Amino acid sequence: MNSEPGTLNKSIEVCVAKGMMHLHDVTDKTVVVVDILRATSCMVTAFAHGVDCIMPFADLEECRAMSKQGYITSGERNGEKVEGFDKGNSPFEYNEVIRGKKIAFTTTNGTQAISRSIGARDVVIGSFLNLTAVANYLIKSPNNILVVCAGWKGKVNLEDTLFAGAVVEKIKDNVTIDDDPALIAQHLYNLAKGDKVEFLKKASHIKRLNRLGIHEDIEYCLTEDKFDVVPRLKDGILCC
Amino acid sequence: MNSEPGTLNKSIEVCVAKGMMHLHDVTDKTVVVVDILRATSCMVTAFAHGVDCIMPFADLEECRAMSKQGYITSGERNGEKVEGFDKGNSPFEYNEVIRGKKIAFTTTNGTQAISRSIGARDVVIGSFLNLTAVANYLIKSPNNILVVCAGWKGKVNLEDTLFAGAVVEKIKDNVTIDDDPALIAQHLYNLAKGDKVEFLKKASHIKRLNRLGIHEDIEYCLTEDKFDVVPRLKDGILCC
Repeated sequence: MNSEPGTLNKSIEVCVAKGMMHLHDVTDKTVVVVDILRATSCMVTAFAHGVDCIMPFADLEECRAMSKQGYITSGERNGEKVEGFDKGNSPFEYNEVIRGKKIAFTTTNGTQAISRSIGARDVVIGSFLNLTAVANYLIKSPNNILVVCAGWKGKVNLEDTLFAGAVVEKIKDNVTIDDDPALIAQHLYNLAKGDKVEFLKKASHIKRLNRLGIHEDIEYCLTEDKFDVVPRLKDGILCC
Repeated sequence: MNSEPGTLNKSIEVCVAKGMMHLHDVTDKTVVVVDILRATSCMVTAFAHGVDCIMPFADLEECRAMSKQGYITSGERNGEKVEGFDKGNSPFEYNEVIRGKKIAFTTTNGTQAISRSIGARDVVIGSFLNLTAVANYLIKSPNNILVVCAGWKGKVNLEDTLFAGAVVEKIKDNVTIDDDPALIAQHLYNLAKGDKVEFLKKASHIKRLNRLGIHEDIEYCLTEDKFDVVPRLKDGILCC
């Protein structure tokens, strides 16, 4: 247990899908946005490789228009790269020399969850790749915490729930957990953590992605603590 | 495994809170409505004790007005009995001689989940008390299945999710499970089934109910297979 007085006054909640965000008051919170497969895993990889900033867009055409301002255009719809965009939604596309570049990014679920977090005291980007970095950031912050799972087309998915559970498990001694979704996620993570790839084999989104032939992406996105970056939203733009 | 050809063509999905029902097409489905603490546990208890019918109301005053037509008025708001109503939301109030009576019932979450199920091919009432009866009913039906967790004020709760998982676990050999919430619920139930009361001690709603001093209600509502009834909605009225 954490011995600092008052620390446990900080709470953690989990929003299981972006469509339920209206049930949460974000104004006093650090919101952790997660879309494990694959938006937030891409973003974390890009920042770990020196990207200057990422501007998230819910709207596809607004994102496309940013190419005129020198931005790299990135994104997917329904798991596949958008025609005419520079990059898609595989983290390996961001695992290269992109130092100093600016990216305009849109995805089916992840960037929309970011848009809905506007108004929060603080917004950070979470993935297994930067799990411990995010956990340490949250422990140091005085804010209450809301982990927002992007989900899949409005519904709950296993991989984002698992990440939410990983955050709860990592910071459990520093927060009060009075939120059933947080408890559910924590139980699931503790069940799965020994072999997340195996645990997720039955998950509907994983089956869908495996049909797209991107098993390597999945293994990569489930790897913990490859990077020590915590991307944050400032004035609508992600930076590190 | 079930050996009947074609049986696995039947699917099961779980809607984790009533606010997410718009994401599911119910027209081809048997919807199982669950509000373990305590609406659907009360309803199942009432039918097991011979009640004639239960008319569910989302609106409090519409429910109250039914007393003029000879209905017993039942219900709660925020876990407490409504002033002027005949009965509240403790299953022990329905564990007595009510044979042949008619009940008008309204609750914070459960009856609203029932209202939103209108349009489904079939709607049944689930609780741990009639778990196996519901499971057998679903196995015999050709319809796809949607378990709707009432939740708590729009959010996911542990006890309804556990029940959804119990249904998935009971009928897993007779259905295709291609739905992450169903998998999550099934994992949770298998973790909790040895001692659900202990598992749920940290749940936020349980803590709230324990503050109301109704520990006996909780233990009762988590008891499996006390009754062999399957209440069904017909023309807006529950009967057995």
